[in-house]
Amino acid sequence: MTQSLRLGVAGLGTVGSAVVRMVERRAATLTDAAGRPIRVTAVSARDRTRDRGLALADVAWFEDPVALARSGEVDCVVELIGGAEGAARATVEAALAAGKHVVTANKALLARHGAALARAAEAAGVALAFEASAAGGIPVVKTLREALAGNRISRIYGILNGTCNYILSRMELEGLTFEACLKDAQALGYAEADPTFDVEGYDTAHKLALLTSLAFGSEIDADGVSVEGISAITPLDLRMADELGYRIKLLGVAETTPAGIEQRVHPTMVPKSSAIAQVMGVTNAVTIDTDALRELTLIGPGAGGEATASAVVADIADVAAGRLVPAFGRPAAALVHPRRAEMQRHEGGYYIRLTVHDRPGVAAGVATRMAERDISLESILQRRSENAAQQDPHGRSGVPVPLVLITYAATEAAIRASLDAMAADGLLSEPPQVIRIERD
Amino acid sequence: MTQSLRLGVAGLGTVGSAVVRMVERRAATLTDAAGRPIRVTAVSARDRTRDRGLALADVAWFEDPVALARSGEVDCVVELIGGAEGAARATVEAALAAGKHVVTANKALLARHGAALARAAEAAGVALAFEASAAGGIPVVKTLREALAGNRISRIYGILNGTCNYILSRMELEGLTFEACLKDAQALGYAEADPTFDVEGYDTAHKLALLTSLAFGSEIDADGVSVEGISAITPLDLRMADELGYRIKLLGVAETTPAGIEQRVHPTMVPKSSAIAQVMGVTNAVTIDTDALRELTLIGPGAGGEATASAVVADIADVAAGRLVPAFGRPAAALVHPRRAEMQRHEGGYYIRLTVHDRPGVAAGVATRMAERDISLESILQRRSENAAQQDPHGRSGVPVPLVLITYAATEAAIRASLDAMAADGLLSEPPQVIRIERD
Repeated sequence: MTQSLRLGVAGLGTVGSAVVRMVERRAATLTDAAGRPIRVTAVSARDRTRDRGLALADVAWFEDPVALARSGEVDCVVELIGGAEGAARATVEAALAAGKHVVTANKALLARHGAALARAAEAAGVALAFEASAAGGIPVVKTLREALAGNRISRIYGILNGTCNYILSRMELEGLTFEACLKDAQALGYAEADPTFDVEGYDTAHKLALLTSLAFGSEIDADGVSVEGISAITPLDLRMADELGYRIKLLGVAETTPAGIEQRVHPTMVPKSSAIAQVMGVTNAVTIDTDALRELTLIGPGAGGEATASAVVADIADVAAGRLVPAFGRPAAALVHPRRAEMQRHEGGYYIRLTVHDRPGVAAGVATRMAERDISLESILQRRSENAAQQDPHGRSGVPVPLVLITYAATEAAIRASLDAMAADGLLSEPPQVIRIERD
Repeated sequence: MTQSLRLGVAGLGTVGSAVVRMVERRAATLTDAAGRPIRVTAVSARDRTRDRGLALADVAWFEDPVALARSGEVDCVVELIGGAEGAARATVEAALAAGKHVVTANKALLARHGAALARAAEAAGVALAFEASAAGGIPVVKTLREALAGNRISRIYGILNGTCNYILSRMELEGLTFEACLKDAQALGYAEADPTFDVEGYDTAHKLALLTSLAFGSEIDADGVSVEGISAITPLDLRMADELGYRIKLLGVAETTPAGIEQRVHPTMVPKSSAIAQVMGVTNAVTIDTDALRELTLIGPGAGGEATASAVVADIADVAAGRLVPAFGRPAAALVHPRRAEMQRHEGGYYIRLTVHDRPGVAAGVATRMAERDISLESILQRRSENAAQQDPHGRSGVPVPLVLITYAATEAAIRASLDAMAADGLLSEPPQVIRIERD
């Protein structure tokens, strides 16, 4: 076991450069931990001339990452190119076909092609490791694949996108709008120029699909995730949440229900006292509910070059030490085909912010439409401004005012039907805001 | 790899019974995860007649756990007897000598004999796994040994004893005394009849010594832990902490300092906004500070049969899958001899609650004694009761009143010297309460 593990790193962006530096900086410790040296012997990146501050003199350079994946000088390919198709996919497929281990941070690739890649890795008897792809520096993949082997998991949920959590945290703490916070996030490099992928929840959905598969032993079903982003959240919702004892977080939630596996990404009211509610800024967090542990929560950095490199290097150390785990914790053939629980059947508490015309009978009309569908109300919050009350002491002006409802457990279908009925009655002056509540 | 891993379980108390049940309940999933079946083939316990609700008909029974450890029917010995010496030690030593893997939850044994046992396991080429011994169901050993391989750890601290956290949580939430909460903890089974080991911090110290070794790659140095328990904490301290923005937790803290490795267990003021401050009741938590991740926090159950069994079974699954890790994350010979940083050199913020005679000049005397040792004060809190103020409007009664000080960073030696000087001046009517502050 004194032969080095030879790494080929495809992609030398922020994460790739951090990986190369970490492998060098921690060489002695990694050799001790893995039982043999780990060396970067080959790299591939688009621009060879860029100064990345890396000592790459003794390292083979490949224009083409697929050629790197096939190189005889590489035992383990570290794919940090990104994207579900194109060069990333070709590189990983070539590496597995050549019988080389693969370590990747590519959630899009795995969410799309994880099952086929896992089968290829198994057939070749090599590792397909992807700790960095689910929650950055938080070792949630290792926890699910190895540490919870004896547990039956019933739910996993988390803050999986730092951009969204940064925006929601600032909106809450400073009373700012979504647009203002997004602009700041972009200026600070926390959000892309086109932020859609992050703020509309798709990034969270990819990560959730991986965690779902690991947690429930099911095939990845990225298309089965119901997705809703945070762009419609207003400062008023955050204030109301605060008054009612909640915070709003963009959560990815997967749980087993009698109807099947429910996977959903949406802004969520979480009790202020929960561990996950304390997580502010770009930090990520994952909570796992199991039969034996009840609740296990992991909190840490979800992104950034160094944090992501930490996860990549841990996977590399496992490969070097010969510690192999099936990609999704069990053989690909043992993964069950997931039965999807449709979102309409989701049952839980709801926060509903209506904008109603301020006139007699409106509250009664709203309450009736909910009662018809057996929806019970935990709280109702209507607060007119001082100003409005002075100008219109009888409450008959008909001006739009907010009316906030918190329901007990109800189905998504019942909630949507009652809101449709209210709209048909002409009770609503704006589309309603609906935010699901997640109990801990 | 289709041959079963044959387990010999020594000790069938709460944890041992939970392990046997979990291995059976999760047999199919464990087989998938580990690549081969896992079976309990032998057990050992003192009382054979007790009904534990286990199906042990096909299982060999050993009166003597050492005989079980040597049995040809066992590949992996699961030691759940407990205690640093006696049967537990003999069993583990016999198992390693016979070339069998060992999985244990025994923190006392490892804190005392970890280095020798790790060497024996290495020589035999077998596993010595002890996930359950550090923070119950929280996978902190795996995280330190494997997931953080690329990180340089600078500090690790945590709530490692559920009994103490339960007592402090109830004292805070209900304003009760230590004695009252201890009694309740005993009634609920959270505390032993003789609670010394838990409430005086020794249990936390054992666990901390293991985490220190894993975090810093140093030999275990259980005798190097400075230990202080929670029995002197009063409801007044908890109220004062609350007013100043802190909670009081019994923490185990290990950090690298210029003077060496500091290991300490003591009641600690933690900022209310920190993740660890949110952890209430019997729950445990560990925070790890590293160069690459900054902060990673794991929160979960620290004790209980099922939670501990979860950790034991994860270790068993690793053994069954052939995923071997050196006991302390690197070869025993590579562990460095720890240089101890003496507690007197500890530098940090301090909460000091003095009981002084209420008369002119006392505050000045206190402040002078601190200034002489270059100790700067962040806050001073003196609050006389309404009653006292009415009876003694000039503050000259000389009755004992509390005076609370929060210092900026100062050394333990300076703090102790200034308090000695105040006592010599006759300023203190009772011994001072000193609680260290830990910043996140």
